[in-house]
Amino acid sequence: MAAPRSLYLEDIAVGDRFVSGEHALDADQIKAFAAQYDPQPFHLDEAAAEGSLFGGLAASGWHTAALTMKLFVSAVPVAEGLIGAGVEVTWPKPTRADDILHTESTVTEITPSRSRPGRAMVTIETLTLNQSGETRQRLVSRVVMFARAQG
Amino acid sequence: MAAPRSLYLEDIAVGDRFVSGEHALDADQIKAFAAQYDPQPFHLDEAAAEGSLFGGLAASGWHTAALTMKLFVSAVPVAEGLIGAGVEVTWPKPTRADDILHTESTVTEITPSRSRPGRAMVTIETLTLNQSGETRQRLVSRVVMFARAQG
Repeated sequence: MAAPRSLYLEDIAVGDRFVSGEHALDADQIKAFAAQYDPQPFHLDEAAAEGSLFGGLAASGWHTAALTMKLFVSAVPVAEGLIGAGVEVTWPKPTRADDILHTESTVTEITPSRSRPGRAMVTIETLTLNQSGETRQRLVSRVVMFARAQG
Repeated sequence: MAAPRSLYLEDIAVGDRFVSGEHALDADQIKAFAAQYDPQPFHLDEAAAEGSLFGGLAASGWHTAALTMKLFVSAVPVAEGLIGAGVEVTWPKPTRADDILHTESTVTEITPSRSRPGRAMVTIETLTLNQSGETRQRLVSRVVMFARAQG
């Protein structure tokens, strides 16, 4: 669906889906992120990665997560901003240098706040997929959303 | 505890703790990460952040997570590398520009693989704390660990 400028609680329902644009990864990006945040050989060096559990250069899972956020933010323009209270992340397969990533997000649960009217906790499942439809990451986020101001 | 060079399954037990070094954050780092991965006003601009739910400039949760990985990798030198199968993350309070972060990791569970002898799934809880001992992130990771090669 085409995303409106700002999403309020009234604008979403369980089952709604949001598909992002794409991000083309490459080995330089993988190594630059890893050098700063996850300096392990299998994220930094092709030869070292060959002999690792990954069997080749793989992006840090946190790099996949950060790129997912970039795509997710542009695809799901939540009013007041996308603020996560908590997340679960799994990485079923490593992200590779030739991956072109996009995200597909689905609203799975909406729980209105009892103490604060006009506010809800919204659960969104976001799959990060490559150009062949292979899942690189599954993210479940709990996000705060607001109703439009009354009056 | 002082971390040995390479941790194998035989080297750890439930209850073991690992404390990292420190990372001093600042506003420029927060904005640089946000510009690339989480370009929302409350991560990019002090004035815009004042009026947000955060009430002031806050680091992206994914930035806190990435910095946590940097500290965690140096503090817990798992043999064959720190490879996460899945994680749960919560951010009880926003990370701020004047935070000096460190991590405290505790082994909470060790589950030997039934199908692959010499391998186990190890659950590690990692708290990311600032210089006042305030928790900025709670991370629960499931990590693959190996026994020393026999013979």
